[in-house]
Amino acid sequence: MTDVTKYKLNHTMYRVRDGEASVEFYTKVLGMRLLDSYINNDAKFSLYFLGYDDSLNQSQPRMSRQGLIELTHNHGTESDPEFKGYSTGNGDNGGYGHIAITVDNLQAAVARFDSLHVKFMKRPEEGRMKHIAFIYDPDGYRIEILENPEYSTK
Amino acid sequence: MTDVTKYKLNHTMYRVRDGEASVEFYTKVLGMRLLDSYINNDAKFSLYFLGYDDSLNQSQPRMSRQGLIELTHNHGTESDPEFKGYSTGNGDNGGYGHIAITVDNLQAAVARFDSLHVKFMKRPEEGRMKHIAFIYDPDGYRIEILENPEYSTK
Repeated sequence: MTDVTKYKLNHTMYRVRDGEASVEFYTKVLGMRLLDSYINNDAKFSLYFLGYDDSLNQSQPRMSRQGLIELTHNHGTESDPEFKGYSTGNGDNGGYGHIAITVDNLQAAVARFDSLHVKFMKRPEEGRMKHIAFIYDPDGYRIEILENPEYSTK
Repeated sequence: MTDVTKYKLNHTMYRVRDGEASVEFYTKVLGMRLLDSYINNDAKFSLYFLGYDDSLNQSQPRMSRQGLIELTHNHGTESDPEFKGYSTGNGDNGGYGHIAITVDNLQAAVARFDSLHVKFMKRPEEGRMKHIAFIYDPDGYRIEILENPEYSTK
């Protein structure tokens, strides 16, 4: 027997050109914690599992969590001048779109991203959707930034 | 001020050819609940937010949750014979890989998927990784299936 009410969405996986650079971005810029990593030098790949230690997740083992990312780094791409980078899904009929992160305060998060020289695809004030920003990770994957109403003081 | 310890990974977005077919798959086969949908007939797209009502998430509003998926359906693709389908990321240098869902019991989940005629990319007994299965969603996106040790009886 299996009980679908016990299922969880544990993680989303995508490939990155430079594992160390991406771990630095997701931890230092986005505030995730590196929960687990697996480095296979024979098969030449590394996996990095990252996520938030928030009130829903804290103290849970990785496999019982939800809302994580798994970054796959195929060794060598970070220093291969022939490597053209991964398709990030938003063009040429790519299906993948983005991950979305909720923050406590959108304007303050944007100010902090600016201080860290993060690249924006869309700042909140651009376009009609003033409550949304989009930034890029080191590979050019889109990350949507939204304010979590739980923390809004309005 | 912004406090990164309050950040959460709310959702992962990808595009689907047929919104209704995908919602049926993610709810009936994978047991997610449709939390929210947004249908814009002028701009000809629909958004569907789905996720699990598990103990971590239940009773929380959508924007305060984590581990959701957002499916984007651009109207017309479901009946357009010219539409070749979305690139699902695992080939031609695609960066996106998969989402991973943890289940209470892997063998029982697989038996249930079989009864629902789900397509497998990898059954648990195939290859070296006996604790992992991969299935396909209606667009051919990969979904990894793992057993959550929290529910294992071993």
